[in-house]
Amino acid sequence: MAAEPAEPHFADRLIRRVRTLGNPLCVGLDPYLDKIPPLFRDGPMTPQDERTAPAVGAFLTAVLDRLEDRVAIVKPQSAFFERMGWRGVQVLDQIVRHARDRGLLVLMDAKRGDIGSTATAYAEAYLASDAPLRSEALTISPFLGRDTLEPYLEVARGNGAGVFILVKTSNPGSGDYQDLNIGTQSLSQRIAESLGELATGLRGPQTGWSSLGIVVGATYPKQGEQLREILPNVPFLIPGYGAQGGGADDAVRTFVPGPNGPEGGIVNSSRAVLFPAAGETGAAGDWEAAIDAALAQAIDGLTEALARRG
Amino acid sequence: MAAEPAEPHFADRLIRRVRTLGNPLCVGLDPYLDKIPPLFRDGPMTPQDERTAPAVGAFLTAVLDRLEDRVAIVKPQSAFFERMGWRGVQVLDQIVRHARDRGLLVLMDAKRGDIGSTATAYAEAYLASDAPLRSEALTISPFLGRDTLEPYLEVARGNGAGVFILVKTSNPGSGDYQDLNIGTQSLSQRIAESLGELATGLRGPQTGWSSLGIVVGATYPKQGEQLREILPNVPFLIPGYGAQGGGADDAVRTFVPGPNGPEGGIVNSSRAVLFPAAGETGAAGDWEAAIDAALAQAIDGLTEALARRG
Repeated sequence: MAAEPAEPHFADRLIRRVRTLGNPLCVGLDPYLDKIPPLFRDGPMTPQDERTAPAVGAFLTAVLDRLEDRVAIVKPQSAFFERMGWRGVQVLDQIVRHARDRGLLVLMDAKRGDIGSTATAYAEAYLASDAPLRSEALTISPFLGRDTLEPYLEVARGNGAGVFILVKTSNPGSGDYQDLNIGTQSLSQRIAESLGELATGLRGPQTGWSSLGIVVGATYPKQGEQLREILPNVPFLIPGYGAQGGGADDAVRTFVPGPNGPEGGIVNSSRAVLFPAAGETGAAGDWEAAIDAALAQAIDGLTEALARRG
Repeated sequence: MAAEPAEPHFADRLIRRVRTLGNPLCVGLDPYLDKIPPLFRDGPMTPQDERTAPAVGAFLTAVLDRLEDRVAIVKPQSAFFERMGWRGVQVLDQIVRHARDRGLLVLMDAKRGDIGSTATAYAEAYLASDAPLRSEALTISPFLGRDTLEPYLEVARGNGAGVFILVKTSNPGSGDYQDLNIGTQSLSQRIAESLGELATGLRGPQTGWSSLGIVVGATYPKQGEQLREILPNVPFLIPGYGAQGGGADDAVRTFVPGPNGPEGGIVNSSRAVLFPAAGETGAAGDWEAAIDAALAQAIDGLTEALARRG
């Protein structure tokens, strides 16, 4: 008998929040230093300068304050914090806590993948109930095999956390290996198939969606549809909407009918929301208005696409 | 025309150091909190306690002092530092600097893998000349495709840094996807083949070995031999020697004749060197003697296996 999760089920929380807010947008927190509004910095910033991480923190804190009650979830991209060294991770810690304080779910985009006890250490770093960088969910890589996913899933079974496993990524070269043919299937399809039973074991009691999700680029809608057939109850994290060239209709193509309209995961936009061109003037009012407008545009694009799906 | 590397070529430095020292041992720095000698801690340690990271730092600093002039390279496992949050990354920073000050090469075992500008951020975090956690080499995952390896290789071409790309990992489940058949080859072989040209472009002028290396578990010696045929000039990082059950003979089976005997990469041991059972008594003298003995045993095991290969 599985232990009762001590905290609410990730997918149930996510999907219910998406239903309530009426949009599946996930805002990616990718702090490109050269794009941060002048308001938050004193001239050009370098990753090595110890003033940089606090400035990034102030910027992202202000962004998070604008996202509250608008989006269900945010996705900090760990790489952009790590490139500032430990001070960057300190700011990542602050940002994660601030997001959770604001009621936003946090999906840590770290794409970790390692063996045995090392995978356990990553699960303890990001998903465990007492994790220093406690997030509601984490992106992980399947390449090392299913035994290397187990430590994350074990935490998920215990405390309700979620994972999104890389299956078909949004980049141009994702086909190099992910599209290779294993018999009549692609590697991506084969991986998806091998996750089916694990996903079923993590379905939420309220929505039926699994806390085991997968990553499927908006840039490959056809593959997305095939993966949806394989994994009907798995939420998709769909990156590539906006800046990477994926349109809203492609982004929601894998969604299926739900009680409040089509649903099936979350659609990520990072740069288009965080760094709207109009905000580069730097005045506080301008900047906030520009972020609000970019956010509204990203949300409207998705809700309109969902309406078109009926 | 390729730019002249501003700093020495990683593989040339690595292989020449291995030749000079006479052993290919890489010592993995995996700080399991419950195994750290009592000498360095005040009772049980938890990842959340802010006293833990400094204690881990003191332990690993003392270990590094014993490795100087004995081994060519050390491999900090990022996960064990991340699980202590930003304070852990601060200690990782100190450890990396201390190792380099001691003349040890540093291979950051972070197994990063992400797309486009995110991969660039990881390369800038760990490999760039001004990286906050500047290491001589980094482990990376190929799963997202060759375009996602390019940012690391670009840094490598510029400053001589190295990478080790996951191809056949040491864990029991590595076959789940890595052994799948793509036509007549395994996925691992197919990945290896796709790296050949990139590896050739990164061969060192002094040794002919490439700064593009691959990870091949000691636990799969047969697959290792097949991968060696595909990539003759690529150094292998061979984890799984010692604690994971790979023997010394299996660990060096992919080595090829060199000027000072067989060579072909590095063989990693973490727990067997870092946490010898005899060191658990905790007295300083005992602990140092136990580490020295464990180190000598790991080195002797490899040099004897190399002698058997002739």
